[in-house]
Amino acid sequence: MRIDVLSLFPNMFSGPLHDSIVGKALERDQLTLEVTDFRQYSTNKHGNVDDYPFGGGAGMLLQAQPLFDAFAATQKTASEAGIPSGRVILMDPAGVPFTQRVAEDFSREDHLTFICGHYEGYDERIRTLVTDEVSMGDYVLTGGELPAMVMIDAITRLLPGVLGNEASAPGDSFSTGLLEYPQYTRPAEFRGMKVPDVLISGDHQKIDDWREAQSLKRTLERRPDLLDKLQLTAKQQHLLRDIQLELDENAD
Amino acid sequence: MRIDVLSLFPNMFSGPLHDSIVGKALERDQLTLEVTDFRQYSTNKHGNVDDYPFGGGAGMLLQAQPLFDAFAATQKTASEAGIPSGRVILMDPAGVPFTQRVAEDFSREDHLTFICGHYEGYDERIRTLVTDEVSMGDYVLTGGELPAMVMIDAITRLLPGVLGNEASAPGDSFSTGLLEYPQYTRPAEFRGMKVPDVLISGDHQKIDDWREAQSLKRTLERRPDLLDKLQLTAKQQHLLRDIQLELDENAD
Repeated sequence: MRIDVLSLFPNMFSGPLHDSIVGKALERDQLTLEVTDFRQYSTNKHGNVDDYPFGGGAGMLLQAQPLFDAFAATQKTASEAGIPSGRVILMDPAGVPFTQRVAEDFSREDHLTFICGHYEGYDERIRTLVTDEVSMGDYVLTGGELPAMVMIDAITRLLPGVLGNEASAPGDSFSTGLLEYPQYTRPAEFRGMKVPDVLISGDHQKIDDWREAQSLKRTLERRPDLLDKLQLTAKQQHLLRDIQLELDENAD
Repeated sequence: MRIDVLSLFPNMFSGPLHDSIVGKALERDQLTLEVTDFRQYSTNKHGNVDDYPFGGGAGMLLQAQPLFDAFAATQKTASEAGIPSGRVILMDPAGVPFTQRVAEDFSREDHLTFICGHYEGYDERIRTLVTDEVSMGDYVLTGGELPAMVMIDAITRLLPGVLGNEASAPGDSFSTGLLEYPQYTRPAEFRGMKVPDVLISGDHQKIDDWREAQSLKRTLERRPDLLDKLQLTAKQQHLLRDIQLELDENAD
C-alpha cells in the first residue's frame, strides 16, 4: 500500500509512526508512506497557505491552491509508479465516524491520501478533491495530523503480514463484536489482588466459558449497543439471560 | 496543568506534541508534560514488562508491577510539587466515548495521568489505579500512545490562554452543537469554482442568515443526531422547516 499525507507539519509524523507497527511495515516494504508539506506548493511569494474568510469571521482558512497543486504532484508520482489514484480522505466532524469497518475497507486499497487540515478550517473547494470525509469523534483538535496517524495505525495493522502474531487480530474487541474479557498475567497474586481461580484451574472448557460470560457481561454493562448489532449463538443468549438475572438480583 | 504519560514508547511523543499547540503551551508554562517509560520500573532483571495470560490465549499482557511502580513515582513527584493526584485515564474500548464534553471536563483538572497500553492487553489489576476509562472509538490500535496524544491536544487547546485567538474556540463544531457552514477564502474564483455571491455581498445580516441555514442544513443532512440534543431557537426551527421542504422537493 502507498499512503500519501498532505500536511503543514511533516515533522509530526516522524516520531510516532516510525516507532510503532507502521515503522515495521515501512521497513519490510509492506507500506510506502510519503508526507508532503503542501506549503512548498504555495504560489504565494511568502509561502502563505491561509487567508481570511469571505464574509468575515474569526480565524484563517486553508487556501485551495497549495493543496490542489501538492495533490496533483503526489498523484503524478503515484501514477508514474503504476499506483491508482485511490481514496482521498479528509478529517471532518461532518464525516462518517471512523470505525473498524472503515479501517478494514481502507486496508483493502492500494493507495490512500490523507489531507490534514489546520487553522480554523479550509476553503470549501478543497472538498472537491476528496472521496471520503471521516470523523474521529465529536471533539475539536488543532489539526488533522493526529487523526491521520490514528487511522494509519489502525489500517496498517490490518495489512497482510504486518502483525507478527497472526492470531492476535481476530481476538480483538470489535472483530468479535464483544468487549474483551478480563485478562491476567503473572504473578498470580499481586499486592493482595488474586487471579480468578478458574484461570489457573487448567480446565480449558471452564476457562472458555468464563471468558465468554465475562465478555458478554462487560458488553451488557458498558456497551449494550454492541449487542444489538450481533447475532448471538444459543449459548450466548443463555449466558446473557443468566447474567441479566444476576444483575437484576444484585440491583434489588 | 500537569500531565503525566506512562508509556513504553516515550519517543513517540517528541515530534507531534512539540510541533503543535501543545508545544506552545509547554513553552509558555501553561502545561507541564512528563512522559515516563515504565519499563525503567520493571523489577525483572531483563526489563520485561509483559508475560503470557493465565488460562492461555494468544499474545502478551502488560504486567501490573512496572505500571504500579512508575505511577507511584510520578505521583510522588507531583505530590512534592503540591499537585493533587488528579485523574488517571486508561484508553479502553469499554470506556466512555471521548467527546468535547469529556475534554472540557478534563481541562478543568490540575493533574492528569495517561496510561498507555500496548501488546494484546493488560493485567486486569492495572484498572485499580484508574479513575477514568475512555474510548477513542470502535476501532483497534496497536497502542494507547496516539489516542493519548489526541486527548492531550483536545484538552490543551481548552486551557485558559492557550489558543491565541480567543474568538476561535466558541465557533467550533460541537461548541455550537451544529456542524460548520461552508467557508471560502481567496481567490473568489478558483479553477472555475466560485464563492457564493452572498459571502461577497457585504450584507452582514444576509451572511449570518446564510451561514446559520447552511449549518443547519449540513447538520440535518449528515448528523441529524446532533439536532436532537439541541434547544433550537424559533428562528432555527423556522429555517429547519424551510430546509426540510427544499430537501423533500428535490427528492421528488
